Amino acid sequence: MDNLYMKQRVKKVQNFIRHKKIECLLLITPANVTYTTGFTGHDSWAAITPHRIYLLTDSRYTEQAEKECEHCQILERSGSMPQLVAGLCKRLQMLRTLHIENAVTCASFSALKKAIPVSIKTTSSIEDQRSIKDPQECKITRQAIRLAITAFEHTVQEIRPGLREFEVAALLDYHIHKQGATNAFDTIVAFGPNGSRPHHQPGSRKLKANDTILMDFGARYRGYCSDITRSFAIGRTTRLFDKVYQTVKQAQLAAIAAMKPNVKLSDVDQEARHVIEKNGFPVYGHGTGHGIGLDIHETPSINPETSGKAQSGQIITVEPGIYLPGKLGIRLEEDVLITDKGTKVLTQACQQVSRLEDYQRLTGRRHTSTG
Amino acid sequence: MDNLYMKQRVKKVQNFIRHKKIECLLLITPANVTYTTGFTGHDSWAAITPHRIYLLTDSRYTEQAEKECEHCQILERSGSMPQLVAGLCKRLQMLRTLHIENAVTCASFSALKKAIPVSIKTTSSIEDQRSIKDPQECKITRQAIRLAITAFEHTVQEIRPGLREFEVAALLDYHIHKQGATNAFDTIVAFGPNGSRPHHQPGSRKLKANDTILMDFGARYRGYCSDITRSFAIGRTTRLFDKVYQTVKQAQLAAIAAMKPNVKLSDVDQEARHVIEKNGFPVYGHGTGHGIGLDIHETPSINPETSGKAQSGQIITVEPGIYLPGKLGIRLEEDVLITDKGTKVLTQACQQVSRLEDYQRLTGRRHTSTG
Repeated sequence: MDNLYMKQRVKKVQNFIRHKKIECLLLITPANVTYTTGFTGHDSWAAITPHRIYLLTDSRYTEQAEKECEHCQILERSGSMPQLVAGLCKRLQMLRTLHIENAVTCASFSALKKAIPVSIKTTSSIEDQRSIKDPQECKITRQAIRLAITAFEHTVQEIRPGLREFEVAALLDYHIHKQGATNAFDTIVAFGPNGSRPHHQPGSRKLKANDTILMDFGARYRGYCSDITRSFAIGRTTRLFDKVYQTVKQAQLAAIAAMKPNVKLSDVDQEARHVIEKNGFPVYGHGTGHGIGLDIHETPSINPETSGKAQSGQIITVEPGIYLPGKLGIRLEEDVLITDKGTKVLTQACQQVSRLEDYQRLTGRRHTSTG
Repeated sequence: MDNLYMKQRVKKVQNFIRHKKIECLLLITPANVTYTTGFTGHDSWAAITPHRIYLLTDSRYTEQAEKECEHCQILERSGSMPQLVAGLCKRLQMLRTLHIENAVTCASFSALKKAIPVSIKTTSSIEDQRSIKDPQECKITRQAIRLAITAFEHTVQEIRPGLREFEVAALLDYHIHKQGATNAFDTIVAFGPNGSRPHHQPGSRKLKANDTILMDFGARYRGYCSDITRSFAIGRTTRLFDKVYQTVKQAQLAAIAAMKPNVKLSDVDQEARHVIEKNGFPVYGHGTGHGIGLDIHETPSINPETSGKAQSGQIITVEPGIYLPGKLGIRLEEDVLITDKGTKVLTQACQQVSRLEDYQRLTGRRHTSTG
């Protein structure tokens, strides 16, 4: 991690805890630990005070932590994590109350409560701070997007009737992994009517000659996630497909057009739903989008109940869909950066294509089949 | 899921809660929900009373739940999960105290506490019950093992100098996924001295002509995990490699030989460490093994502090290693079923092979390269 941006991030979190009159905040969720320390290993916590930051880890990760977390003091535990936290509390001599993220389990909370010599309270955490991305985070997210799109472009070259859903997902995952990235989440591949289930798990259904395909996929690179959905048909599209596709696209564009700093996210949500409703299609049951970053789903959510407003620096998915059980499902998903002036769609490549053959023609120029 | 075994599992859990005088236990961790209901979707909880079992889900999963959970009453939420739990509490008219797994987050616990009309307590959960596998669970675990071994056998045909660690991991993952399974955990591939870090993440190091390889991988099939580690060399092995390999193998066999019902697991752990120590190598810092099942790490753990004893029906990894920083790391891992009489090693295939060329010769008879 670039040290300058990391220092600014830590400063932002320290201002936040100072404002909340927190003496020491214990971070236990992996995304929050990575955000403040740069550490990418497992089983480690961070503790942040208005002036210092500590990484709490064990001997398996000390070497890695020394490389990744230059701005942190690294505390290596030999006993249990609560024992190490107790040691930290003693080191912070003036500490009266330790705050911990309310995502902690009740079991861990009571183990800590028993072990430490000060009082302990749960608190909401730094998700709002994390939702505003700095230039370095934007850059890494763009790389995660590029990796996912490259994997998709390779995969479409290899899609042919007869392949099963999980075989197409396996190809896509392979092309993500061989670039040195991992999956941001379990890849969704749904053929034909299976597309009408928004959370379909890839199964053994074989692709037919005139089928439709929905693929929802993302790469995780240096911790950061991308999240993209493409829906397309093989061969000639039907009238229904075209009508549904265009309606979803229009809904998506309406939502993106409405996004800019200080706009209510519930209004953005409404823009997309309105287009689908007025075209006489059933309105989707999921949210219109969500923040992406170190977690695949993070603040803010775009749904009818969201109370927040869009802010410059947020990267949000926009993913309306139309689901017609027994017939088909189409969802289109872009990753959108909110800027001072409006938005920038980060997933431009391979948009607006509704036929497999068009994807193959467009991307075939850049890639050859790699098996 | 086979209904007979599922019913026996539910009965086992119901006996447990009756014994603990629990009126209703709310299960929130995915593995415990799957164990008692058979449900494989997300974002759902289970509630079990001495006489009934409920699955708490939402409209995205109702169709799937109706297929997978014939023995459950399915409650679909329209509002929040705490609201649905409140509704369930009212339905269970005599309920005074609701128990919930202590793996619940403090945030969820306080949301529930506010929403429901009865008192709520956290409790340790059904991990001990889950650790004893029934014949159906053993069968599915064997399938998960077979899938992982098949993927490994395909992968070794494609390993050649010049490939990067993450490319070999990508191949292995591909061969797991194209069989319709998923990864049980992130695949570890480490070349040469990288093998000395037990939790190495596959990087960009290229395989050399006389390198060593450590691969730790597993498939998840119908919810159940396998977990296998193989370490081997390319070309001629060195004296050091042979000595380390044989010592690790001997340590593993000693631990397996010691395993049978009612033996202390800390003694099993000691058997493996003793072999490594007496051969003058540094003793590994991780546990000797862990249960596998619906979670990749579950009860029991085999380490010096384990207080439990081996029980018939447990499936446990045995995975000692020797790590020589800057030189090499060798870990060997089998999945072992504890039977009434002793043990059965479920990962027999491709054991005792220490050279890539031998793997290629052995498995090449069964597979051809598939790219």
